[in-house]
Amino acid sequence: MRVEYEKMVEVFERILTSRGLDSDDASLAARIFADNSLYGVISHGANRFPRVIDYIEKGDIDVKARVETIFSTPLFERWECHRGLGFLNAAKGMARAAELSDVTGIGIVALKNNNHWMRGGTYAQWAAERGYIGICWSNTTANMPAWGAKDPRIGNNPLCIGVPRKSGAPFILDLAMSQYSYGKLESTRLSGKKLPYPGGFDEEGNLTDNPQSIEKSRRVLPFGYWKGSGLSIALDLVVTLLTNGNSVMDIGGFGNEVGLSQILIALNPEKLRIEDMDDIVSRNLEYIKSSEPVDAKRKVSYPGEGLYRAKSANEENGAIEVVDEVWNKILSYL
Amino acid sequence: MRVEYEKMVEVFERILTSRGLDSDDASLAARIFADNSLYGVISHGANRFPRVIDYIEKGDIDVKARVETIFSTPLFERWECHRGLGFLNAAKGMARAAELSDVTGIGIVALKNNNHWMRGGTYAQWAAERGYIGICWSNTTANMPAWGAKDPRIGNNPLCIGVPRKSGAPFILDLAMSQYSYGKLESTRLSGKKLPYPGGFDEEGNLTDNPQSIEKSRRVLPFGYWKGSGLSIALDLVVTLLTNGNSVMDIGGFGNEVGLSQILIALNPEKLRIEDMDDIVSRNLEYIKSSEPVDAKRKVSYPGEGLYRAKSANEENGAIEVVDEVWNKILSYL
Repeated sequence: MRVEYEKMVEVFERILTSRGLDSDDASLAARIFADNSLYGVISHGANRFPRVIDYIEKGDIDVKARVETIFSTPLFERWECHRGLGFLNAAKGMARAAELSDVTGIGIVALKNNNHWMRGGTYAQWAAERGYIGICWSNTTANMPAWGAKDPRIGNNPLCIGVPRKSGAPFILDLAMSQYSYGKLESTRLSGKKLPYPGGFDEEGNLTDNPQSIEKSRRVLPFGYWKGSGLSIALDLVVTLLTNGNSVMDIGGFGNEVGLSQILIALNPEKLRIEDMDDIVSRNLEYIKSSEPVDAKRKVSYPGEGLYRAKSANEENGAIEVVDEVWNKILSYL
Repeated sequence: MRVEYEKMVEVFERILTSRGLDSDDASLAARIFADNSLYGVISHGANRFPRVIDYIEKGDIDVKARVETIFSTPLFERWECHRGLGFLNAAKGMARAAELSDVTGIGIVALKNNNHWMRGGTYAQWAAERGYIGICWSNTTANMPAWGAKDPRIGNNPLCIGVPRKSGAPFILDLAMSQYSYGKLESTRLSGKKLPYPGGFDEEGNLTDNPQSIEKSRRVLPFGYWKGSGLSIALDLVVTLLTNGNSVMDIGGFGNEVGLSQILIALNPEKLRIEDMDDIVSRNLEYIKSSEPVDAKRKVSYPGEGLYRAKSANEENGAIEVVDEVWNKILSYL
């Protein structure tokens, strides 16, 4: 079925309010879910909503938890998040990083003991749409073997980088350290297809494009083999240290994927005297887009364009496509 | 032949002084070349030395160029490098970033119009060995097609991250955005082998592990396909903006790989109240190292260990192995 954006926001907001969120938080959280749906990442939008409500009802997420600033300088703050609503704290963290950067040029907020932030691109995009360069990353539970290993001891730690562009879609990179997500493995298996490129190892240790074999072995491939593995470790070390928080190893011991460590960075272009930002970003992205394409029918694109294409399509349709079962489940929480 | 480390430093220093470097610069530059050799990256050590001297003699590198600080805040400096000695400016940039971080917690130096910094890991390693978290990246000339494109319009933009560890090798990631360097393609071809994994496309557009086919098509593979391509674009946009400098597109138009943009970031753990850094880094790295290995004879390792293994081996030998022809060429500059 199709659900209008504002209708979606309203339903999410009512449900979240009824589960104990105060009105500002419910409003912000509802828009995050609705925006993820609008921008085509419905896996972290409407499809995710029931699971978050279930977590709240089971007490795995404490909606009353309040962040505490446990250390601050003019450009850096460390927040103890007490395992509250991860995506709310991340959104507030990027907004605060931007505020800090308005004074010092660079603002950093380090989130300790936070929960899952859903779509990391949300926060880089928030920054880029407001004229900031946004950089953020999170660690995760141990869900991938390091290069050369069989057992999962590193995370797929998403790294997100947003760069503003007035005259076109901003650049929004949202990069997990695995070649494919478990969601992609599942959807590829369900559609009876193979992955476009090998995405992990089978139980015999051979690289494979068969999603089922990888789900079975749980030996997901770091992107670029040893390279994504190394970057995953680096991101985890830095975020664990900057937050004084939990590492992938620690989180792997919790059973659930909770108590994550995240970092949100905003750069204020005016304060850093960046010149001609929009012109430079546009010229460089258009240069890449005008590459000679491998497939003459597919223009080369850059990260972020897909989000805005999905948004345009949803807006043209006047509503967002949601699986009936999912929307009915959501309505049942009203 | 084998050359002692101190002998190597002395020879480099004498040659650099004779080519116009003042004594402090010659001494620092000589150690960078000798250290890259000592740590097993001789491609950016002794083997690179003759080319740099040739550049100096031809006037492509101006050893008399002095960096100018064109913008500064308590935590951020932008330097105009006037195309001087790239690795000297990068080393000084990271040292200055560390100084800034001693006051503010975070120091950033953005290098505009610099030349090639040789091994990017040098600067992350310098920081990590002195107790700082070091992060740096550079852009390059356009040497790789974006994902979905045939012609090279993005750079392999190395990203380096160093994290201190007292009780063992520090973590040093040195990550180019291509799956393999042109140097690796060449050495694999010369040894008559195939690449371990596909490293690019042949002229028919098929992924291949044949280095010669990739050298011919020049269609090097971004690591992780679309993922390394996206990260390459992100790193170039951010470094171009922060430096107000040249982008990969601009550098591609210069003919030579000159006038690069680089960023050096140091984080001071004490100023940022990072707790138990050495213990946390050690426990997390040892956890990863104790993964079940794919090959029972090959323990899982982390980025950086290889550098310190090479150093130990060279120190045990009392000298560094250099190809006769290379060392004789170097001596000819005396």
